[in-house]
Amino acid sequence: MFNIALFGAGRIGQVHAVNIAGHKETCLYSVVDPNQANAEALAQKYQAKIQTIEEAMADPHVHAVLIASATDTHADLIELAARHNKMIFCEKPVHLDLERVRQCLATVEEYQVPLFVGFNRRYDPQFRRLKNLFNAGTVGKAESLLITSRDPSPPPAEYVRVSGGMFRDMTIHDFDMARFIIGEEPCAIYAQGSNLVDPVIGQAGDIDTAFIVMKFPSGAMATITNSRRSGYGYDQRLELHGEKGLLNAGNIKENSVEFWGEDGCVAAKPEHFFLQRYREAYIAEWHHFVDVMAGRAVPETGGIDGEQALYLADKALESLRSGKEIKL
Amino acid sequence: MFNIALFGAGRIGQVHAVNIAGHKETCLYSVVDPNQANAEALAQKYQAKIQTIEEAMADPHVHAVLIASATDTHADLIELAARHNKMIFCEKPVHLDLERVRQCLATVEEYQVPLFVGFNRRYDPQFRRLKNLFNAGTVGKAESLLITSRDPSPPPAEYVRVSGGMFRDMTIHDFDMARFIIGEEPCAIYAQGSNLVDPVIGQAGDIDTAFIVMKFPSGAMATITNSRRSGYGYDQRLELHGEKGLLNAGNIKENSVEFWGEDGCVAAKPEHFFLQRYREAYIAEWHHFVDVMAGRAVPETGGIDGEQALYLADKALESLRSGKEIKL
Amino acid sequence: MFNIALFGAGRIGQVHAVNIAGHKETCLYSVVDPNQANAEALAQKYQAKIQTIEEAMADPHVHAVLIASATDTHADLIELAARHNKMIFCEKPVHLDLERVRQCLATVEEYQVPLFVGFNRRYDPQFRRLKNLFNAGTVGKAESLLITSRDPSPPPAEYVRVSGGMFRDMTIHDFDMARFIIGEEPCAIYAQGSNLVDPVIGQAGDIDTAFIVMKFPSGAMATITNSRRSGYGYDQRLELHGEKGLLNAGNIKENSVEFWGEDGCVAAKPEHFFLQRYREAYIAEWHHFVDVMAGRAVPETGGIDGEQALYLADKALESLRSGKEIKL
Amino acid sequence: MFNIALFGAGRIGQVHAVNIAGHKETCLYSVVDPNQANAEALAQKYQAKIQTIEEAMADPHVHAVLIASATDTHADLIELAARHNKMIFCEKPVHLDLERVRQCLATVEEYQVPLFVGFNRRYDPQFRRLKNLFNAGTVGKAESLLITSRDPSPPPAEYVRVSGGMFRDMTIHDFDMARFIIGEEPCAIYAQGSNLVDPVIGQAGDIDTAFIVMKFPSGAMATITNSRRSGYGYDQRLELHGEKGLLNAGNIKENSVEFWGEDGCVAAKPEHFFLQRYREAYIAEWHHFVDVMAGRAVPETGGIDGEQALYLADKALESLRSGKEIKL
Repeated sequence: MFNIALFGAGRIGQVHAVNIAGHKETCLYSVVDPNQANAEALAQKYQAKIQTIEEAMADPHVHAVLIASATDTHADLIELAARHNKMIFCEKPVHLDLERVRQCLATVEEYQVPLFVGFNRRYDPQFRRLKNLFNAGTVGKAESLLITSRDPSPPPAEYVRVSGGMFRDMTIHDFDMARFIIGEEPCAIYAQGSNLVDPVIGQAGDIDTAFIVMKFPSGAMATITNSRRSGYGYDQRLELHGEKGLLNAGNIKENSVEFWGEDGCVAAKPEHFFLQRYREAYIAEWHHFVDVMAGRAVPETGGIDGEQALYLADKALESLRSGKEIKL
Repeated sequence: MFNIALFGAGRIGQVHAVNIAGHKETCLYSVVDPNQANAEALAQKYQAKIQTIEEAMADPHVHAVLIASATDTHADLIELAARHNKMIFCEKPVHLDLERVRQCLATVEEYQVPLFVGFNRRYDPQFRRLKNLFNAGTVGKAESLLITSRDPSPPPAEYVRVSGGMFRDMTIHDFDMARFIIGEEPCAIYAQGSNLVDPVIGQAGDIDTAFIVMKFPSGAMATITNSRRSGYGYDQRLELHGEKGLLNAGNIKENSVEFWGEDGCVAAKPEHFFLQRYREAYIAEWHHFVDVMAGRAVPETGGIDGEQALYLADKALESLRSGKEIKL
Repeated sequence: MFNIALFGAGRIGQVHAVNIAGHKETCLYSVVDPNQANAEALAQKYQAKIQTIEEAMADPHVHAVLIASATDTHADLIELAARHNKMIFCEKPVHLDLERVRQCLATVEEYQVPLFVGFNRRYDPQFRRLKNLFNAGTVGKAESLLITSRDPSPPPAEYVRVSGGMFRDMTIHDFDMARFIIGEEPCAIYAQGSNLVDPVIGQAGDIDTAFIVMKFPSGAMATITNSRRSGYGYDQRLELHGEKGLLNAGNIKENSVEFWGEDGCVAAKPEHFFLQRYREAYIAEWHHFVDVMAGRAVPETGGIDGEQALYLADKALESLRSGKEIKL
Repeated sequence: MFNIALFGAGRIGQVHAVNIAGHKETCLYSVVDPNQANAEALAQKYQAKIQTIEEAMADPHVHAVLIASATDTHADLIELAARHNKMIFCEKPVHLDLERVRQCLATVEEYQVPLFVGFNRRYDPQFRRLKNLFNAGTVGKAESLLITSRDPSPPPAEYVRVSGGMFRDMTIHDFDMARFIIGEEPCAIYAQGSNLVDPVIGQAGDIDTAFIVMKFPSGAMATITNSRRSGYGYDQRLELHGEKGLLNAGNIKENSVEFWGEDGCVAAKPEHFFLQRYREAYIAEWHHFVDVMAGRAVPETGGIDGEQALYLADKALESLRSGKEIKL
């Protein structure tokens, strides 16, 4: 049984708490959060301790840390955990500044602790199945990848201001997905964007609608289409075109009930947002991390993946600002 | 080039006129209809003659007759055409009275003219494809057949009164479809029905909603579900379950455009009614009849099919009235 | 916290054990099963006691029993539990003999304990949503209900022999569903069936393929199509046609990934069997029973529902054997 | 009745011949084609004359010309027809060289004859319906448009060499579609491409797989994904995301029959190629041109549309070669 110290008792921390408690090899040992109310609620529900950062890091009963705290604390906590020889599960991103990410990963390297970066979508059963079918040769060599990723509605202005911008906050998942599916590092990137959804986002210097095109050394290409608002739930789709046809991972609808009447056939819309759509993905990534802790696997998604996705986000921003394709 | 005399210039006659004129081996030679205005409109459009029944039958230039007139004239016209050695395409049914059908078919037999009875649905590309896949062994032996057949909205009361009742007017197509798909004659039939759609139909002694169950000598079974009103267009579906799975012919939607919004995903409803849904079937059955006229084929759907479908309609009515399964 | 004694540690007992343990108001207190290995495995996993029937019934710490043991033990255990004032959750059926069911329910009545009979499908989110939309008037008055229920593959011969026959074992769920959706008791029933899937089933005097037609006092009708083998997973669908259109609850597919190639578009088949398809239904029915135990609800599905569904199964068998529609 | 001289009796000329003959206000008067066999076959079928270019242009009975000949003859024939005061229906493109297009359109302007350029996809009932729903405000302001356009399999090398390249030959339809749907002229364009499908195409200096991104003055963006090979038929889709949701025009499948078995649910693939998919579009555009000839309409798609689409193709090529976004 692995004892886990959870940093961050907010929305995403609560998702992980359920999965930690639900796994037969892990136990929610302690909760660390400056928001006392959140920490207490979660600790009480799972009969866990409340600890400070220092206590958790120093506690020899803590086998691993799960970092789900504010983004700007991730790199510091990773380094601290590495120095205390704790195994690390960290929500993406490692940090919004690429240099800081590289420093942090060097520290992890030095202390030789396993680090898993939570790109949850790689564990979505739909996308994983598409990847497996591609690996099995179903469509032959990859030619074009289309990633659709649209949030149901825009985040509040205060979130946008500290988010690092759309590419580092939202598209970063799609950069990772492109690398995961194609299995190569892109060699060129182009980005185009607009502020169409909410003027507040534009006032914060950000965009809310974007198209990105990437080219890979094999000649394969990928495009990402993003929007901070779909109007019909969380739109998460992949299309992978290869030599022999198309692999297509569609949305999961809220239910299978249809109404057919005078005005047409009305079906449910896609599941609302990431907590619903990726519920199984969060469970599956935790299973993988338990395998890592138990020595049965090495992290499939490590620091380098966090670094590369952020690098692509930075280069996309450079392309958006310069109106040029960026060679990588 | 075969010259066709068309009996009946109403809605269905007009559909056939287009197809006769559109086929490179046939020509709309003359139109016969007691409604002078209808006859003239059609004759003018296709530069055809207007003839009386007697003129058309006696005219040596007429190679074949297409009977699309009122139901109660079908049997008389078939016999007259047979006696004049015209090849015969007749809309279903031959007659609403089974004895009259048998007499009529005996006459056809005597004069040895080809008779095609227009069970148009056998020529629907969807149902034909399902039948072909079944014949090719895709699902192995037939086990269960589900026929869904629902009109968009009920007919006027005056139509209901002369229709011969729902089983002889509407279900007759489905009886023929069951025989066509399964390829056996049923050995037992049961019918249940209600008057739910329009009280006027009940006042005319008829039903508007029905379930029929048939059993075949091989043990295969079929069910037909009928309604005079769907509320969402013309619902025409087949499901054939066999040893190895399901063959399913779904509806054709009016278009492929969807709107995804807050209230779900709205798609088009099925095509409105038989003129839209079976447009291709009417063309295909005409192609078949041209092959018959040219000696390249014998009628796939002949008098015996008209007789058997009517026989099943009569027995379904007997079952409905007696509350008993009828052995055939 | 309610302590639950679980009778039966087999496949379905294990499903319930997970849900009991997963609910914050219930605890798996003890396991009762003549199969020692099964009992021990489950008890160990959830740190529950192993008890005999008598111990569990006599134990004042046991608040409720969950009966998931062999079918022929259900009625005896229900009566015993009632006499010991335990609240009762019983898997369907109460018993295969209608007289024994009535005796048993009389005992429950006498001791005034809550009895919930586990017709799990009523708690399937899809079917529940269809029912709610119907109740909200989406399609107006009910006219036709089509229930499709096909198992992926036939059960072993030894199961068939003790099952009570297809109607009492399998169709019983569909009888309950028809009553649940339409909200009336049927007034006539007709059944037709065949032995097509496995000759062993026929040798045991049973059928494996069936069509049932029911009529309700309002004139609404329902049909059930059953097969012991689909060849493509667990086929569980509802179609409810009303005055204003159709409510349709389709299958849940195993995943959302499609392959489009030369031979067409290949999508996943429906989820394999009831453990997958009704996973959420089992959780939801347990939530309801917890509400019952806590006094927040009365059983939505009680003894009378078990009795009525069995009555319909008996009458369907009478119809099958007599070739007659049975008035109820 | 308008007499039409048809230039070009090849594949696409034959499609137009059927529609000319099928329209009640038009007649295939003459056929002009240097390939004598093609010309004769078509002339005989429709009882039309065979004429030389000069004869057709000089013939006062010819009301309009339909230019479906080799691409490099279009501009010359347009000018000749304009000088002879014939109304003009010309297949796209007007010419592969933008300067020549402009000269040609100036001539048309001078002689004041109506010129319709055959961007057939604007008349596809699916895309037209999407456009109409957008115009009606269904999704509010346009934000993102995704155009998918993939041929079933690559053209022969000899075709590629005279095609003007993928952007001028294939993408030109999609450039027109983007302008049609969004209703603005793009202000920036970026293209990325690869030679993945057939090395012969690369040897001819062309690409066969492309992604294009365009931005419009309103901030709306469009992306086009092209491939010379899909492996599953003709993939023709539109997705228009707006303020209030998504309008989505999917593919039309070859049929509605599905097979559900052990390996999943197999449905038909999209219709094979443009002759099947755009059959109705060819008829609808001819109806529009007849309205133009009769003075009931002005050309919806005229010379300026041909010019603008070619301009975008040229700029896309410039972007592909320079690796830069091009401002327009």
